[in-house]
Amino acid sequence: MERTPAAKTAGFFCLPMNLDFEKSGGLVTAVIQDHSSGRVLMVGFMNEEAFRKTVESGFATFWSRSRQKLWLKGESSGHRLLVKEISTDCDRDAVLVKVEAQGPGVCHEGYESCFFRRLGNGEWRVAEERTYDPHAVYGGK
Amino acid sequence: MERTPAAKTAGFFCLPMNLDFEKSGGLVTAVIQDHSSGRVLMVGFMNEEAFRKTVESGFATFWSRSRQKLWLKGESSGHRLLVKEISTDCDRDAVLVKVEAQGPGVCHEGYESCFFRRLGNGEWRVAEERTYDPHAVYGGK
Repeated sequence: MERTPAAKTAGFFCLPMNLDFEKSGGLVTAVIQDHSSGRVLMVGFMNEEAFRKTVESGFATFWSRSRQKLWLKGESSGHRLLVKEISTDCDRDAVLVKVEAQGPGVCHEGYESCFFRRLGNGEWRVAEERTYDPHAVYGGK
Repeated sequence: MERTPAAKTAGFFCLPMNLDFEKSGGLVTAVIQDHSSGRVLMVGFMNEEAFRKTVESGFATFWSRSRQKLWLKGESSGHRLLVKEISTDCDRDAVLVKVEAQGPGVCHEGYESCFFRRLGNGEWRVAEERTYDPHAVYGGK
């Protein structure tokens, strides 16, 4: 992310106010896309603080709905998501975050992308190979 | 979408049960991606019926949260989204729908993608030209 003094003082701290966090109970949808291949890697949610941390740190940070806490993606696995570009949509209730994935995959099940199941003939089928062993990375978690 | 007799009888009617519609109040997140360019075009939401109609008709159909009704994308503009491939994520609470967009853009503001504003120096800025005149397409709507 570009960080100029002007942006730091004027922009970053009012930015989240420009997103519509109200429509979905304080959250915006965050689509994570590999900046190089264009592959959609995962979908998460960000509250204002997660969005701010994503912008300020340069690493994708989410609000975990299941754990009800901020979640720096890669905090356990080391597979962090380096932010390359952020866009928002016409309604400002979703962000598209293009990233460079640090690690072999973003999915906790061991795949490059969380979208590893494809619909065919009326069934969801795993459409690719794992890129890492999730037990080796996450252990018993 | 592939549609075999087996899929029609066995698969399509139990498919939605395999997605987790409960986590977000009856909805799954639907990321729409251009199957050819890889560009993310929009994010919407589908309830069970919208997902079923998307699969059965081959055109992306959403649940409009603002209008509280099913919404065949393109019903007003003619810019429908022909489904080429559907994937789901590890949690089965999101779908990635690769489409062929029929028309110059999916955004009601006249852009190819709803993600036409990019973050730079602390501000959201329109990062591209319109691909059509929304007033000509949507009129006073």
